[in-house]
Amino acid sequence: MRGRGNMASSSNSPCAACKFLRRKCQPECVFAPYFPPDQPQKFANVHKVFGASNVTKLLNELHPSQREDAVNSLAYEADMRLRDPVYGCVGVISLLQHQLRQLQMDLSCAKSELSKYQNLGITGHAGLFAAAAAAATATTHNHNHTTTILRTLGSI
Amino acid sequence: MRGRGNMASSSNSPCAACKFLRRKCQPECVFAPYFPPDQPQKFANVHKVFGASNVTKLLNELHPSQREDAVNSLAYEADMRLRDPVYGCVGVISLLQHQLRQLQMDLSCAKSELSKYQNLGITGHAGLFAAAAAAATATTHNHNHTTTILRTLGSI
Repeated sequence: MRGRGNMASSSNSPCAACKFLRRKCQPECVFAPYFPPDQPQKFANVHKVFGASNVTKLLNELHPSQREDAVNSLAYEADMRLRDPVYGCVGVISLLQHQLRQLQMDLSCAKSELSKYQNLGITGHAGLFAAAAAAATATTHNHNHTTTILRTLGSI
Repeated sequence: MRGRGNMASSSNSPCAACKFLRRKCQPECVFAPYFPPDQPQKFANVHKVFGASNVTKLLNELHPSQREDAVNSLAYEADMRLRDPVYGCVGVISLLQHQLRQLQMDLSCAKSELSKYQNLGITGHAGLFAAAAAAATATTHNHNHTTTILRTLGSI
C-alpha cells in the first residue's frame, strides 16, 4: 500500500531521495515529483552539495509550479560543483563572459570595417549602408546589455 | 589567548563562521582565512545554501591554494540562489547564453554585409578586404567555440 496516491512514485517504488535517505516515501513527499527512482545520481549529487535539509527548505518556500525548475537548476549546479570543486558553475559564467568579450571585440572590428566602406562613399548601394548602420546599432545595444550583466557579476 | 596564532583571525576575534556557529575558533580553523569577522553575511549565505558541514568537507578535499577561489565561488553561488531561489546562478548562465546567441547573429549579419562589399569588387582597398576576411574568420572561430560550451550546457 506504500506510495499509493503518490503520482510521481511509479509502481510504488520510493523516490530516489527517500531511497537514498532510507526513509519511507510518503504520498506528500516534496522530493518525489522531481527525483524519480530511475535517476538516483541526480539526488545523490544535490544531497552531496546542498544537503537534503536545505533543499527541502528551499522547495517548501517555493510555489509548486516553480519547484521543477528549482530542482533542475540545483541539479545542474551540483553536477558542475562535483566536476569542478573549485569554481563549480561560476567557472562556466567566467568562460561565457570571456566569450562575450571576445565576440564584442570581433563585432566592434566588423563595425569599424563596415564604417570604412561607408566612408568610401559608395552611394549606389543604399541598402548595404542601411544594413551596416543596423549592424552598428545592434553592436551598441548588445554592448550596453552586456555591460550591465558584467557589472552585476563584478564581484567574481 | 584564544585565536593566537590564527593569522586570519585578526585581534583574536573568532572568524565569521565560528561566530555564526557559536563555537570556539581554533588556530587551525578551516574557515577563518576566508570568512573574516567583518563579513558575517558571506558565511551566513554560504551556510544557508550549502551548509557548514558540506563546505568543510569540500574545503578539506582541496589544496589550500585553491580554497580562497572555492569559497568565493560558493559565496557567489549562494548569493545568487538567495536572490533568485528558482534559478540561482543558472539564471545568469541562461542570460549569458542568450546574449552570446544574439551577438553571434549580429556578427553573422556584419560578416554577411562585409562579404557583400567584397563582392562589389572594390580592388583598390586590399587592406580593408584583408581586415574583412579576418573579421569573418574570427566569427567562425567564435561560433565553434561557443557551440562547444552550449553543447556542454545542453542539459539546462
